[in-house]
Amino acid sequence: MARGDEELLRLSETLRVLEDEREIIRLISSYGPAVDSGQSEVAAAIWTESGVYDTDSAAWRGRAEIAAMVEGAQHQQLIAEGAAHVVGVPHIQISGHRAVATCYSRVFRHVEGKFEVWRVAVNRWELVRTPEGWRASYRTNRLINGSAAARELLGRAGEIG
Amino acid sequence: MARGDEELLRLSETLRVLEDEREIIRLISSYGPAVDSGQSEVAAAIWTESGVYDTDSAAWRGRAEIAAMVEGAQHQQLIAEGAAHVVGVPHIQISGHRAVATCYSRVFRHVEGKFEVWRVAVNRWELVRTPEGWRASYRTNRLINGSAAARELLGRAGEIG
Amino acid sequence: MARGDEELLRLSETLRVLEDEREIIRLISSYGPAVDSGQSEVAAAIWTESGVYDTDSAAWRGRAEIAAMVEGAQHQQLIAEGAAHVVGVPHIQISGHRAVATCYSRVFRHVEGKFEVWRVAVNRWELVRTPEGWRASYRTNRLINGSAAARELLGRAGEIG
Repeated sequence: MARGDEELLRLSETLRVLEDEREIIRLISSYGPAVDSGQSEVAAAIWTESGVYDTDSAAWRGRAEIAAMVEGAQHQQLIAEGAAHVVGVPHIQISGHRAVATCYSRVFRHVEGKFEVWRVAVNRWELVRTPEGWRASYRTNRLINGSAAARELLGRAGEIG
Repeated sequence: MARGDEELLRLSETLRVLEDEREIIRLISSYGPAVDSGQSEVAAAIWTESGVYDTDSAAWRGRAEIAAMVEGAQHQQLIAEGAAHVVGVPHIQISGHRAVATCYSRVFRHVEGKFEVWRVAVNRWELVRTPEGWRASYRTNRLINGSAAARELLGRAGEIG
Repeated sequence: MARGDEELLRLSETLRVLEDEREIIRLISSYGPAVDSGQSEVAAAIWTESGVYDTDSAAWRGRAEIAAMVEGAQHQQLIAEGAAHVVGVPHIQISGHRAVATCYSRVFRHVEGKFEVWRVAVNRWELVRTPEGWRASYRTNRLINGSAAARELLGRAGEIG
């Protein structure tokens, strides 16, 4: 292979990683706007068909359950009052067709004319590359409340699998 | 066109999108530091000459009005007490010379030795590529207080125009 | 040099900047997960061997002091109760082997079953490229409490040196 071709290949591979990261950031940053505007199908499509959203209080398995959570009474009450599900800057590790993104999330609620910090959590997004693009296969969300579970997720930032 | 040339063209186009996104993130992330340090001209230059900053409480039209807002008594009071205008991870969609970036913003204020969450809002930045780089032509900011306006902006994340 | 070679060189240089930024974002976004899970060595390795973490209340000089701060009683108390050191979207400026990243940070604490905003600060990360990758040579952290020091750091976002 000529020297120019080798350089082209190297550039192409580097660019592929940057594109992957960009797509993952887009995916993750679409969660808040989707759930805070009640777009249950858009939110559910962040996951694979059988993807799991595992939180302290419940786990939703598959897109149908995730969409139903968004459409449910508790979440609709949040929307009606005003809530912002803010997902922070992710720490991303990619290995081939799998990736993990670790970030903090915060839910701010509008209560009696003021804003309060309702939840602060760590999120571990396990992602897979699918024909439709990157999707979440498993998202674990644990409140930062001193629990060992949250510390364990934080300690595994950047570790795939 | 030779195969290497085609690949070079494809790489060049992909890289252009990543560079655009990087420039947009730089632009948006310069807002907080500019207004919280009182650099009114730097803040105003984020917009085009006739750009608009449209909020729940007021709309400022053109760089002169935006700079005057930063120099105004209310904003100077915020700076004196301590305020952080934190703009979150944007969800960006680019189409040629136009782009839209949707993100949450929060204003934290220092009040009597403590920090409080003063405002939580959704921001829709409509951006255009100018000879000087990307600039905001219209930024809409709506408090996340249960209003239909905020939900509508969140629901249009990623939609240009 | 042939036209294709020139284009290849330009692409390679542009890509280098994007890779640098990505690496810097990874470095900075690893701080929170490291300190909130008590990984003192991981946190300390964000800095160069003689790197400095300079805050309102204290300055830690060198990796050993930074690691000791994480292992210290005050920080361990934060971890036990639940604390999230959230570092925001950085504004990055790179010049050769040096860079500066400016961002807001917030520390959320879990207190009596609720979350509170404990600290909001501006961070100026001065970074250097080392054989092991980008590392922080000096991080200045100042509370956004109306002080001139915080405004000065915010006003220098993007200025290297």
